[in-house]
Amino acid sequence: MDECKIILMGFGAVGKGVAKAISLKKDMIKEKYGISLKVVAAADSSTSAICQDGLDEELLLKVKEETGKLGNYPEFGRDKSGIDVLDAIDYDVLIEATPTNIKDAEPAKSLTLKAFEDGKDVVTSNKGHLALFYKELIEAKEAAGVDFKFEASVGGAMPIINLCQETLASCGITSIKGILNGTTNYILSRMTTEGMTYENTWEEAQQLGIAETDPTQDVEGIDAACKVVILANSVLGIDATYDDVEVRGISDVSLEAIELAKEEGYYVKLIGEVSRKQLKVSPRLVKKNSPFAIDGTLNLANVNTDLADDITVMGKGAGSLETASAMLTDLINIIKNK
Amino acid sequence: MDECKIILMGFGAVGKGVAKAISLKKDMIKEKYGISLKVVAAADSSTSAICQDGLDEELLLKVKEETGKLGNYPEFGRDKSGIDVLDAIDYDVLIEATPTNIKDAEPAKSLTLKAFEDGKDVVTSNKGHLALFYKELIEAKEAAGVDFKFEASVGGAMPIINLCQETLASCGITSIKGILNGTTNYILSRMTTEGMTYENTWEEAQQLGIAETDPTQDVEGIDAACKVVILANSVLGIDATYDDVEVRGISDVSLEAIELAKEEGYYVKLIGEVSRKQLKVSPRLVKKNSPFAIDGTLNLANVNTDLADDITVMGKGAGSLETASAMLTDLINIIKNK
Repeated sequence: MDECKIILMGFGAVGKGVAKAISLKKDMIKEKYGISLKVVAAADSSTSAICQDGLDEELLLKVKEETGKLGNYPEFGRDKSGIDVLDAIDYDVLIEATPTNIKDAEPAKSLTLKAFEDGKDVVTSNKGHLALFYKELIEAKEAAGVDFKFEASVGGAMPIINLCQETLASCGITSIKGILNGTTNYILSRMTTEGMTYENTWEEAQQLGIAETDPTQDVEGIDAACKVVILANSVLGIDATYDDVEVRGISDVSLEAIELAKEEGYYVKLIGEVSRKQLKVSPRLVKKNSPFAIDGTLNLANVNTDLADDITVMGKGAGSLETASAMLTDLINIIKNK
Repeated sequence: MDECKIILMGFGAVGKGVAKAISLKKDMIKEKYGISLKVVAAADSSTSAICQDGLDEELLLKVKEETGKLGNYPEFGRDKSGIDVLDAIDYDVLIEATPTNIKDAEPAKSLTLKAFEDGKDVVTSNKGHLALFYKELIEAKEAAGVDFKFEASVGGAMPIINLCQETLASCGITSIKGILNGTTNYILSRMTTEGMTYENTWEEAQQLGIAETDPTQDVEGIDAACKVVILANSVLGIDATYDDVEVRGISDVSLEAIELAKEEGYYVKLIGEVSRKQLKVSPRLVKKNSPFAIDGTLNLANVNTDLADDITVMGKGAGSLETASAMLTDLINIIKNK
């Protein structure tokens, strides 16, 4: 392989980050691995740009920024999106960055299965299809004999899936406990340090662009629970889906409870726990001087192993370029073995 | 490759850990990667056990424990060690776990170069040859077209080299700052929490087996400086050797200085810093609530990247089985690509 033809599906924060990361790193990848990255199609929710000779990543970003639609890309803009794009052009890898949908996992599920049927590798940042249909996806990937990588689906830039599967390849993973949602960690941190109420902190987080307009997935623990399911399947080999997780969010955590904990030397954090005994997301007390006492939007995972004892990792759980870095690493690890 | 013939050179704490780890994990490796691990020779400083059909790892551990010499291994015990062992038997991978020698890097340097000449892959936990002769070793490895992996040389079980090179493959690494020596971190932690003097803490560390009988390499910052050199070369691509590192240890850190820092909300930690601007080991102040405020013998590394911002990792910096886990991961990553 001396060229890798990419379809980039989804052009929100993560998709834009991928375009930017490819633009920044394609020369390094060409030099180090001898492979030219070529974005042959990029699609937002209703339009796309498609060109067999490759699109310019910076122009994609500019067109989206200025007009709101990739379909306005000069000469190569199209009115199609979704599966139609996969049928419109020859490609090697689908980079799937559509929004997470925890109801029916669409369009990520159909796009991913279609790519597998076409014999193509897939890199995704999506949590919905992995949390709802992990087993089906892995079986389809194996039947197709292709690669499927999803580091970015858990913890954004924080390496955790590849860390456990590859960097700790000799170890059996016994359990993972982590702070897997940056928005709730930001809200709890502000309540703790500033004595602000849940409602006020949440408004602030929205104004800063940290929280989504609809925060339900974050504050009710749904986002963290999806990540627990993905880690359970991919790292611990547990055949679990979303319904197997016991979930409690942070919306009923009172300022009084936080201040009482603080007086005793504890912080309240939303902790996701993955072990063979239980899959759980809930507010828990962590000691003030423990690694779990991290502030702001950071994510953290504590991995308990059989040989290496505990390994702890932390990093930015969100962010456009940060999350894209995890997807680009997945892409590199796919193409360097071709 | 359906079988991997291993020579295990060095049978101190790390070598024993490797034997134990292979004994524990060879069935998993056979099942997952389809490759049988076979230890065809194991050597301590003066004797060895050598058998083309493979040695029993548990028996190696028992013989060493009970008699002090691997040469007493029933039937296959030998009076030779070092390079003579490499010439005595056919093998695929040398696992090199002899003691670090920061003067002339022997015997690790000769053993490693000999294995490369023989066209064999090498996994090492040794810091001496990497800190003194990195460039020469890498050139020899590349000329031979073999693999050379050394995750265990920095941070024991804490993944850092493979983390930067593979798990963060898309990222440029700007700098690494870390607590890279467990013994000094233990001493400084005890001085901070218990108000003990340097001398008393150091005696305690020796009694607990945390500090070596000759603690110079640890307390003078030599061990941490070797790790700084290895990270500079392998992760940042800086052509550096030990003499390029500015080194100050902890032996002149007074209890008064620690208590003064504590009053202001800081701890004193021995920090190794790797960047294009400087290579440095020195006692530094870290904030009480920063990730650097870890206690005991843990190691920590904060990696600054261009795409993923900061990634922080921590884990056990020493320990027989823990360090061996990093070597076994290196071995798995060599054999799974064959």
